[in-house]
This record gives sequence, C-alpha cells and structure tokens, in this order.
Amino acid sequence: MQHSPKVIIVGAGFAGLQAAQSLGRSGAEVLLIDQHNYHTFVPLLYQVATAQIEPGQATLPIRTLLRRFAPRSSRAGVRFLRTTVQRVDLKNRIVETEGGPLPYDYLVLATGSKPQFLGVSGVAQHGLLLGSLEDAIVLRSHILKQFEAAAWEPDPQRRQQLLTFTIVGGGATGIEVAGALTELIRGPLKRDYSTLDLRQVQIILLHAGDRLLAELPSSLGDYTRKRLRQIGVEVYLQARVNRVTEDTVYLTNGQKIPTETVIWTAGLDANLLAGTEHLPTATRNRVFVRPTLQVPGYPEVYAIGDTAHIEQQGKPLAGVAPEALQAGVTVARNIQRQMRGRDPQPFQYFNKGRLAIIGCFSGVGKVGPVLLTGFLPWLMWLTVHLVYLPGFRNRLLLLISWLHAYFFNDRSVRLIQPGFSSMGASFQASASQDPPDRKQNFS
Amino acid sequence: MQHSPKVIIVGAGFAGLQAAQSLGRSGAEVLLIDQHNYHTFVPLLYQVATAQIEPGQATLPIRTLLRRFAPRSSRAGVRFLRTTVQRVDLKNRIVETEGGPLPYDYLVLATGSKPQFLGVSGVAQHGLLLGSLEDAIVLRSHILKQFEAAAWEPDPQRRQQLLTFTIVGGGATGIEVAGALTELIRGPLKRDYSTLDLRQVQIILLHAGDRLLAELPSSLGDYTRKRLRQIGVEVYLQARVNRVTEDTVYLTNGQKIPTETVIWTAGLDANLLAGTEHLPTATRNRVFVRPTLQVPGYPEVYAIGDTAHIEQQGKPLAGVAPEALQAGVTVARNIQRQMRGRDPQPFQYFNKGRLAIIGCFSGVGKVGPVLLTGFLPWLMWLTVHLVYLPGFRNRLLLLISWLHAYFFNDRSVRLIQPGFSSMGASFQASASQDPPDRKQNFS
Repeated sequence: MQHSPKVIIVGAGFAGLQAAQSLGRSGAEVLLIDQHNYHTFVPLLYQVATAQIEPGQATLPIRTLLRRFAPRSSRAGVRFLRTTVQRVDLKNRIVETEGGPLPYDYLVLATGSKPQFLGVSGVAQHGLLLGSLEDAIVLRSHILKQFEAAAWEPDPQRRQQLLTFTIVGGGATGIEVAGALTELIRGPLKRDYSTLDLRQVQIILLHAGDRLLAELPSSLGDYTRKRLRQIGVEVYLQARVNRVTEDTVYLTNGQKIPTETVIWTAGLDANLLAGTEHLPTATRNRVFVRPTLQVPGYPEVYAIGDTAHIEQQGKPLAGVAPEALQAGVTVARNIQRQMRGRDPQPFQYFNKGRLAIIGCFSGVGKVGPVLLTGFLPWLMWLTVHLVYLPGFRNRLLLLISWLHAYFFNDRSVRLIQPGFSSMGASFQASASQDPPDRKQNFS
Repeated sequence: MQHSPKVIIVGAGFAGLQAAQSLGRSGAEVLLIDQHNYHTFVPLLYQVATAQIEPGQATLPIRTLLRRFAPRSSRAGVRFLRTTVQRVDLKNRIVETEGGPLPYDYLVLATGSKPQFLGVSGVAQHGLLLGSLEDAIVLRSHILKQFEAAAWEPDPQRRQQLLTFTIVGGGATGIEVAGALTELIRGPLKRDYSTLDLRQVQIILLHAGDRLLAELPSSLGDYTRKRLRQIGVEVYLQARVNRVTEDTVYLTNGQKIPTETVIWTAGLDANLLAGTEHLPTATRNRVFVRPTLQVPGYPEVYAIGDTAHIEQQGKPLAGVAPEALQAGVTVARNIQRQMRGRDPQPFQYFNKGRLAIIGCFSGVGKVGPVLLTGFLPWLMWLTVHLVYLPGFRNRLLLLISWLHAYFFNDRSVRLIQPGFSSMGASFQASASQDPPDRKQNFS
C-alpha cells in the first residue's frame, strides 16, 4: 500500500468517538467529523436539564479526547473536523461537507438519532426534548421560567397549569427526568419559592405501553411505577398523546391535561445522512447491517450506534452507550483486519447488565440474572457513569456536584440562559404574557 | 405607618443585590427586579470567555442569594421579580414593567452599565463584548471557532487573520482578557491543535491612552505593559480605532489589522431606564447623585453602582465592585433612616485597595500606599474573588477549576455553544465560509 488508508468517521457520539480512538494507533489516517466541537455524554443530559450539573460537565472537547492520537511525523493518527456533512456519495466514496468533498477508503456512519414524533401534531412546535446539550439547556430554562411565572401568578388555575410538567415516554429517559424534576422541586426550588404553594406542582408521566422500562423484566417496571408514585409522580399507563398545543396535552382517551410543559422522550429515529436513503432499514429508520457491522453492498462502509439496526441472538440492541462503545471497538478492529487483507469478524455484544436511575435515592437494575431495586442500583448508576466519564477533573467536579446535590439537597446551576431560541421560544412568548395584575400581588 | 414601606430595587448587580440583602430585615417590603434570574459575578466573566470556568461558576441564582430574606408571616422581606422594566414614573412613584405597574415608596436605581462604542463604526456589528454572561459565552465560542477554522485553513495569510485577536481598551478588563487568552492558547489549545503552527497567533492590545491601567500609579501600568509583552501580547499605546469591519480593524493612524476578532472593552455608559432622561448626568451618562446617594429632586430615589456618578474627595469612583457593594449598604441604611423619619447620611467609600490580574501568574495592585507587582497581587486577586464569591460549593468548584488550570495548564470548558445568536452571528456566518479546498489538506 503506497499510502495509509483514509478512514472517515461521521459523528462523535459514543460509537464514533470510540471507533476513532481505537483506530488511533492503527496506522490509518482517521478523520472524525462532527457538527459540534464537543462529545456529549448523553446519559447525564437529564441532570443538565434539571439544574444538577453544568453543561460543561456533560460534554467534553473532542480534540482533548483525541490528543493522544494526533498525527505527528506521519499523517497517520486521528484528526478532527467540525463541520456539517451534506451528503455521502457511497458509490464514489466521498463525503461532501460544507467545506468541500472528502474522499475515503473506509467510512463509519455513527450519526446517532433524532426525535421521532410518532405523528402527534404539535410536538415539534411545543414539545421539549432531551437529545442534545442544547435541548437540555432549553429545558432547564423552560422549567425555571415556569416557576418564575407561577411565583407571581394570582389565578390558581393558571398557576396550576404553569406548575404541571408532563413527560411523554416511560423508558429510561422519561423516568430519569421525572425523578430528577421531583428532586429539583422538593429541594432547591422549594426553598427558592417559599411563598409558592408547591402542592400545586404536578409531574405526570405518560406511557403508551402496559409497563415502564419495557426492555427490563416486568418486576422492575412495577417497582419503578410504585416508586415514582411514592415520590409524587403521577404515572399514566396505556396513555397515548393525540395532540399537543401551547397550553394543553390531549390524550387519545379524551383526557385533557392543562400544561405548558411537554417533555418528549417517546421515540428516536436513526439520523441518517443524505445519500444513504437507498440502504435497507429496519424499525426506527435504522440501517440494517451485517453481523460484521458492514453496510450490505458496501464492504468499506460501517454503521454503528443508533444509526444501525444491530441484532444479537435474534433481538435488536436497545441503543444504550455500552453497545455503541463496543461496536466502536469492533469496527476499528474490522477496519484494521481489512487493511491487512483479512476478513472482518462478527460483532459480539457483551452485556454487563442494565441500570436505570429513578432518583430520590432509588434505581433498578439487572446484572446477569440478578434483579436489583432501591438504593444499590441508584448508587451503581452514579458510580458507573462517574467512572465512564473521561478525565480526572471532570470526575472530581461531577462527584462534588453530586455530593452537594444529594447531601445538601441543593443545586446551584439554575440559570435561565439567555440567547437560546430553539423550541423554547414558543414558551418564552407565552411566559411573557403574564397577567397584568401583578401589582395586586405586590400591593 | 399603617403598612410597611415598599422599596423597589431595579437591577441585581453588586449594588442592587447588596442593597436588597441589607434591607432584608429592615421591616420594609422589598422587591428586587432583574431581567435575569441570576446575579452575574462580573469580575469572573473574562474567565468564562477564556474557557477557564463554567457559566454557572460566574453566576448565582438570585432567589438562592435572597433565601434568608424571604417574606414569612408578614409581607416584610425581599421578593424577586424577573421582568423587564419599561420605564419609571418618578413623579407618580411607579415602576412600569412587562407585567404591569408597581408603586413604590422608595426606589433604588442600580441598572448598571452598557458598552459605549465611542462613535467607532462597525463595533456594534462586529465587536465582541464582555459585559454579560451571554457576551462571555459568545466570545468563548467565537475564539474556539477561529481555531477550528484555522486548523483547516491552507492559506497562511487567511490563517494569520483567523489567529489574530484584537482587544480594544487598556483597562483592567482588556488586560485580563489579553492575559487569559494567552494562557488559554499556550496551554490547552496548543495541545488540542498540535498540527497548527501557533507562532501565527497574535494578541494585540490597543489602548488609546499613554499608559495602561490609567487609574493606578504609572509604575503599575508600565509593569503591566512590560509583562504583557513578555508573555507575547503586542501592546499599542495611543492607538485609536477608527473603524471595524468583518475582517479588519482600521486605526486612526492609518494602520490596518487583519482580524475577525475585536474584543471591545473600551468604554461603559450608564444603562438608564426610560423615564430618567431628565435627571442631570455627568460623564458616561451617569446620574449625578447627592453625597447621600439620593437623586436630586427625588429624596425617595437613590442611584448606585454604574448608574450613578458618585464623587469622593472630589474624584468620581472608578466603577469597581467594592464601591457598588458599599454604596448598596449605605442606601439600605439611608432608606431605613428615612423610614424612621431621620435624615440620610453621606456615603463614605472605604478603599481597601485595588488589584488587577494580568495572567501567567502575575498581577499588579495598590494597597494603601504600597504598590505590588508580580505573583503576590496575582494570588491576592484570586483569593479575594474566591472569598467574595457567595456560597461554599461555588468556592470549592472555583478553587478546583483554578488549581486544575494553573497546575495542569489545562481547561476543559471549551464548548462552542449552539443556539447563541447575538453578535456572534456575523462571525458564525464568516466561519462557515471556509475554503472549499479542505480536501487538499486531507488528501
């Protein structure tokens, strides 16, 4: 081979970043592309949204994570390009970016997922999401704005509406948000809004299925529902959303929930690049891949993470971080095999277990055949995420934030951040339509 | 008196917040109004802008700072309203807000300052500021974007332009930014952009006057200039900006600096509310106040902080935090005196000294008659700001961030944050007009 092969990896999430790092010393010329200059540690986003940690604690500069692999004397190593990919030309092996076309020898598609609104009207306009750092900051600002507005709202009915928080989706994310929101309100907000009657706060979790955490054994879902109810979350099972407006959620059973806050965690679709439309896809728009993670018809193209439909023992993977990380390692190994003229090997996911955090010192988990509920899986969840977060300083700061939050029941990252437009804008408008009789309160 | 008097304080900066806290147990019904739900610890903004600390480390939730003073049984105490004041009606003693009119018995104007562009064209469009949290986040993103663009820029001349950072103003803020930017580039960015030749980086400090830090003895200004030059900052004295465009700064002496980064720290005007136009003002649009800090003609209205022109021993105050804090205490005391039918007393500023931080382990200071340069005032600056930052957790996190930054010469808050429009928008547009021949680099 006269030159080192060029590998382009699109997306610096768990899968793409891991693939880049694992290829770091392979002799390949690796280019990692992402639209952001930071890697988002997605499992911690709900903590950003509930004012527990700083945005910078759930994100890491990509270049710092790649420092060890920076090209030195030769061109081999990993480089980073912050740009938007416009399309891929799989036939001619070119990635077209804002900054021009980039040829590749191997391509890794790791572009993650995007929210799926399941055809429910109004969610795109009025729903709040939790898929990106920006979403999390917008959600945090929105929650805090509702309290600011409620503090001066003389009409009890309108106040009730401001203080009703609806979460759609009974998967891990929905449950995390419901629990963390409860912690936020019971702890710091109770003290900050001492003149506000917080018995008016309603946190409602809407789930379309029969039980929460469908991918875990049903006893864990039952425990979660019971625990959420104990801490004050109203859990509605078999509840499907029909329509969302600026101030109401309509369910298919005719029920109406007056609320300005709809946190949508109900579904994710693969976020596919233009130029890949012809690839065969499974549910959630995920690209079918071979057991080796190669895209059918393109042996030099791999898809991993939420972009791909990966089956293990006849069942698709759930879409959690450990799967993405392990797939990243496999892709790196398979590309190195191909570079040496050998065949790629099938991906084998090693499941270390699953944990879900509920909040208020409880969680659930399944490790091998053992089911866990209560404090232990809660602590395990925090420990695992602390350990997996890269960087000593980040871990230390995260640990202090958590100790502070859990020992003192307080949080201090409660900025209503200016400058964010996005979906929060519609709410901003409504929040500023506050009643003209605030004077009444103050007089 | 049949009811407790109503005090409205507009602005929760150092002056307004201190006045509110000092009135907390006075028996008055105090309302603190700000457009943000957080207090900005302005002296640390330059560290946010240079990726040293998180936005949440330079800001504190106002409600948390007022918890101790929340009204309980009676209406006496301090409440907070997040809104925008539209105008004040001094004659009828009413503050008009987005949410309606609010009557007062006493009014404290503490609305701070806004940038003053000194008639230089183009600054409003292309300049970057450092007066608010939003400014700091926009500036941080802008600096990092320049490096991302430079990393893939094949044209050396254009790369030079991307890597030229111009700071206008040789006061404390301009010097802090110049030093911190040097630290940022020499430390983490050098490691993150190992393929980029950082000898192309230029940091230029433009100052209209004869010497830096004009309000301190000239030997300190001379030391500062020498020290800045040592660490690689080009200091131009008697340099006046004539015009700023998207990619060039034009000086009045005909010199042209190709740069996309103009950090404007050159001037601040008082940020006056509508309805106060008829009040007599001094330089920088600041309201003349009596020695008691009362606004002439309105004994129930006070002005403090950057809103007011306050003289001590025939000289106006400089506009630093200790002055604002002490004025806040005096206003609270004077209002309490008025509540008891007594006369307000003159404000007397107790000057504990002045410190300015240069960066790279050096600073300057004047404590009483003693002039300090080098490491000691640098450490004192950090210590004083650590001590004055409210909250144990905040102090601990800040200390860790600093220890990490200074011992490991690293920083980890390097997000190019999405969603910020504001002034950064013009740069964003130009940054995406990257050369179409990136391919060249990668091939």
